[in-house]
Amino acid sequence: MLKTVIIGSGNVARHLAKAFCEAGLPPVGIYGRNEAAVKELATEVNVPFSTDELIDAELYLICTSDRAIAEVSTKIQNPRAVVAHTSGSLPTNILQGNYHKAAFYPLQTFSKDRILDYSEIPFFIEAEDPAVGEKLMKMASAISTRVSRADYDQRRHLHLAAVFACNFVNHLYAQAEKICELQQIPFEYLLPLIKETASKVENLLPKNAQTGPAVRNDRNVIEKHESLISDEMQLKMYRLLTESIYKTYEL
Amino acid sequence: MLKTVIIGSGNVARHLAKAFCEAGLPPVGIYGRNEAAVKELATEVNVPFSTDELIDAELYLICTSDRAIAEVSTKIQNPRAVVAHTSGSLPTNILQGNYHKAAFYPLQTFSKDRILDYSEIPFFIEAEDPAVGEKLMKMASAISTRVSRADYDQRRHLHLAAVFACNFVNHLYAQAEKICELQQIPFEYLLPLIKETASKVENLLPKNAQTGPAVRNDRNVIEKHESLISDEMQLKMYRLLTESIYKTYEL
Repeated sequence: MLKTVIIGSGNVARHLAKAFCEAGLPPVGIYGRNEAAVKELATEVNVPFSTDELIDAELYLICTSDRAIAEVSTKIQNPRAVVAHTSGSLPTNILQGNYHKAAFYPLQTFSKDRILDYSEIPFFIEAEDPAVGEKLMKMASAISTRVSRADYDQRRHLHLAAVFACNFVNHLYAQAEKICELQQIPFEYLLPLIKETASKVENLLPKNAQTGPAVRNDRNVIEKHESLISDEMQLKMYRLLTESIYKTYEL
Repeated sequence: MLKTVIIGSGNVARHLAKAFCEAGLPPVGIYGRNEAAVKELATEVNVPFSTDELIDAELYLICTSDRAIAEVSTKIQNPRAVVAHTSGSLPTNILQGNYHKAAFYPLQTFSKDRILDYSEIPFFIEAEDPAVGEKLMKMASAISTRVSRADYDQRRHLHLAAVFACNFVNHLYAQAEKICELQQIPFEYLLPLIKETASKVENLLPKNAQTGPAVRNDRNVIEKHESLISDEMQLKMYRLLTESIYKTYEL
């Protein structure tokens, strides 16, 4: 297994550091510019940290925001090192240096205080050098049971799919929250529905799991809903999503 | 407890019939016009059925589509009966007859073959007569631990919130499915992400759980995503949801 330094101190860095620790492969160091955050994370997982000199390692796992990857990647000067970023949206050649370039992409939403079952998270590995790819497959397999290879084109499409299935979904939950708030209805009432909607697609493809007024072509209910919505942006979303359901089911 | 006839043979009828059976309160009958469907359901839950004459009961629970409620409600001629519909979008006075009118609204998505934990489903009760309301609260409480009163205004807002949190969410899952399909990536890879996104809002309000490129104001990633989308309607949804996230977080 590769001696690893985690670069970054945000949510991805935090969860990957924890995941490696739980797998019995604690990183040899955590590196970042934000001293307070790096120190907090390093203390939490009981690993050395630095904010200036990079600790020597075989694998540098860059867990920063996309914007910071290119710059931080120039700091690594070891041509035998493997340098992998964790971004869904960038090619491996965003990495600026003479070393083995790779991507190590976990498909999950990471929030600070969530406890996650890392063994369930799909990891997608890309590496220019096949032997490096093998090593990263092994590293990821120490954490998770769902490790695959994926090239840049697959990875960026996975990331786009994740924006729909996670980020936009959460924003729709937020619309429901707003509607409940207006009526002083606790958002909690929606939780069993949210859970069942997510569970259903474990067995049914989403296309076959669709319910609701739009797929029933119940224009009467839809008109009533539109008249209930006072927020302009929310009304636009209601209309566009309804139109898209009509189109999908040829209504 | 009230002797109940379920009217209808669709998914709501099926699940409510099952829920009452599991609670030890099997309906005294199932009534509907679609003989094959009514017979199938009645056989499954081992309850008499009819397609012409209504079986005598104290509670008629109308579980048909919204469109059919008014018409079927005219068949009930017993002024002492309680007649409740299960719609989120209609007032109780849609019911056409001289009897006790009520609503008995389960907030859940019902698909035919799903096994549901009925005790978790929120039920919302409305009745003109307070004594009738009490009886319906008891009936619902035999099924579920989450039974509340809600008037028409609350009920229709709950239904609207459910369209966002369930129907539209599922349609976004379908967008993710389409993107995966194009790349021949199994949709299964997205399931841990979908599950975590739904679980997160059990502890965090959705507004505080938002992640992704839009809330990070990462215009670079967003431009790349837009260039990956070939489906016109999907692109419209991507843009509108992104814009709405910008607006929500004042970006």
